[in-house]
Amino acid sequence: MRYVVGVDVGGTNLVAGVLAEDGSEIHGVVSEPTLAAQGADAVTSRIIKLAKASMAESGKKVEGVGIGSPGPLNTKTGIVLLTPNLGWTNMPLRDRVGEGLGLPATLDNDANCAIFGEWWRGAARGATYVIGLTLGTGIGGGIVIDGEIYHGVTDVAGEFGHVTIDANGRRCKCGNYGCIEAYASGPAIAERAIEGIESGVETSLSQYVQGDLSKITAQIVYEAANDADEWALEVVRETASLLGAAVASFLNIFNPEVVVICGGVTQAGDKLFNPLRSEVKRRAFKPAWEACKIVPGTLPGTAGVFGAAAVFIQKHWGLR
Amino acid sequence: MRYVVGVDVGGTNLVAGVLAEDGSEIHGVVSEPTLAAQGADAVTSRIIKLAKASMAESGKKVEGVGIGSPGPLNTKTGIVLLTPNLGWTNMPLRDRVGEGLGLPATLDNDANCAIFGEWWRGAARGATYVIGLTLGTGIGGGIVIDGEIYHGVTDVAGEFGHVTIDANGRRCKCGNYGCIEAYASGPAIAERAIEGIESGVETSLSQYVQGDLSKITAQIVYEAANDADEWALEVVRETASLLGAAVASFLNIFNPEVVVICGGVTQAGDKLFNPLRSEVKRRAFKPAWEACKIVPGTLPGTAGVFGAAAVFIQKHWGLR
Repeated sequence: MRYVVGVDVGGTNLVAGVLAEDGSEIHGVVSEPTLAAQGADAVTSRIIKLAKASMAESGKKVEGVGIGSPGPLNTKTGIVLLTPNLGWTNMPLRDRVGEGLGLPATLDNDANCAIFGEWWRGAARGATYVIGLTLGTGIGGGIVIDGEIYHGVTDVAGEFGHVTIDANGRRCKCGNYGCIEAYASGPAIAERAIEGIESGVETSLSQYVQGDLSKITAQIVYEAANDADEWALEVVRETASLLGAAVASFLNIFNPEVVVICGGVTQAGDKLFNPLRSEVKRRAFKPAWEACKIVPGTLPGTAGVFGAAAVFIQKHWGLR
Repeated sequence: MRYVVGVDVGGTNLVAGVLAEDGSEIHGVVSEPTLAAQGADAVTSRIIKLAKASMAESGKKVEGVGIGSPGPLNTKTGIVLLTPNLGWTNMPLRDRVGEGLGLPATLDNDANCAIFGEWWRGAARGATYVIGLTLGTGIGGGIVIDGEIYHGVTDVAGEFGHVTIDANGRRCKCGNYGCIEAYASGPAIAERAIEGIESGVETSLSQYVQGDLSKITAQIVYEAANDADEWALEVVRETASLLGAAVASFLNIFNPEVVVICGGVTQAGDKLFNPLRSEVKRRAFKPAWEACKIVPGTLPGTAGVFGAAAVFIQKHWGLR
């Protein structure tokens, strides 16, 4: 059995783990804060150190490194073109990490890696037509067709977070208006909850943060929803409904077998997935809806690591 | 050189033509009304008669028939599952036409065929990542990746007309809300123009129909826009802007090289395409926008015939 270290570079955390080439084992999963503010050199050193720690802990001989990073990036040159969250421009991440480890390396988009991981060994295993969303600080996405990541012509494909669900809607950080990310990302969910409180809805939400509304997060909204707070439930339902409108569009476009939804938001469980599925059913073409299951990811925290490693394995050895 | 007859089955018209297997020649292009109200048997007979007329006029020995039809349909069984416009349910169109002509036959979705035709011998020739829209009574779409139509798992993929641009927007015929089809199809354009007149905007539009607003069509709106009618221009601009929001989403998802736009609406020319391109540029990710051209189809009236024939040729002989 050969082994690869996968590294998932996030705006907040770095995660690394060592994968067997058939995906049957993961060893030495380690994580630490990205501390992006320290700059590209410091983060690169930290990535290399973390990958080494993972390899040491795994006790395996590792023959390559697969890296997942926020983009846009160029999978052919291994260069990250621009990441607002990390503050990088034209950063040759693949070669710097590969050289630091003395290993051949691959680079792909972080959300592509997460969905590829879920296809390889997670919730979408075995499916030919897979799309997925990563719901977190932003909303990313990935497309896996016939066991390959679909990249498009310049590696931008799969940006499902930046699909407009209201052409005259909320301004999105990307510059567009009404993107689903502007409604259903973690910060957007918190923002919508706070707007309600400020407009006077009845809710126990502010008690969760001792009255400091700026501390409300999506997580706290889910917590309050679990405690049956009516406004929190309404925010979760509305999130599901808006996400459902977007996902229905994706069904009509891609006609996938599986839509896999990853990220912290999946903690909301059936409270999110039930209204989401209803909304998609109500909106999508019947033969598209009937052919598709909408499921949470089953590799929380490591989907990106699995996928980053799988990109390397596919390129160098072929995926099984 | 071998030859194939392509048939484009539309809700209003049937078109047939004979294609050389390399797409270099089209012969015997003929057309007649579908007269769908006469029922499936009458339409099938008319399709067979028209294909025969095309073959006779072409003077070529024809070895197969490719059919494009509204769907949803099953490309493997050749059965049209349901077409509200034609009133068919579970109609074995491929085999009935094939048997009627004594020729092997293929069946694919009409919009898929149009975009495939534009990829094969039209505006998107040579591109690896192509998406397209057909703007007419409805809005259809097609996806051509690596020289193959992308069908999804149950042949529903590419329904770009049924992507939501306003989650709480206009009710669409498909049952969904805020689909781009509900704003930018021919009838939707006419409807929006009429709503303006009824609400009292200043316009010469009603003069084009001798005051009978029910006679206003998208075509008449374009005509008035060409005559510099302010309201007609505004409707065309708004159409372009809404289409632009949808197309920007498609760029962020697919990152295509070419978006080809087919159908009568392209008669509006730069009045439509200029604001459309501006809107896409304003909304889409820069590396997606920079990699993509948005162009009108160059096979007006026959894109679907080219594509239907190309589906047959690809399946039986391989496409060149």
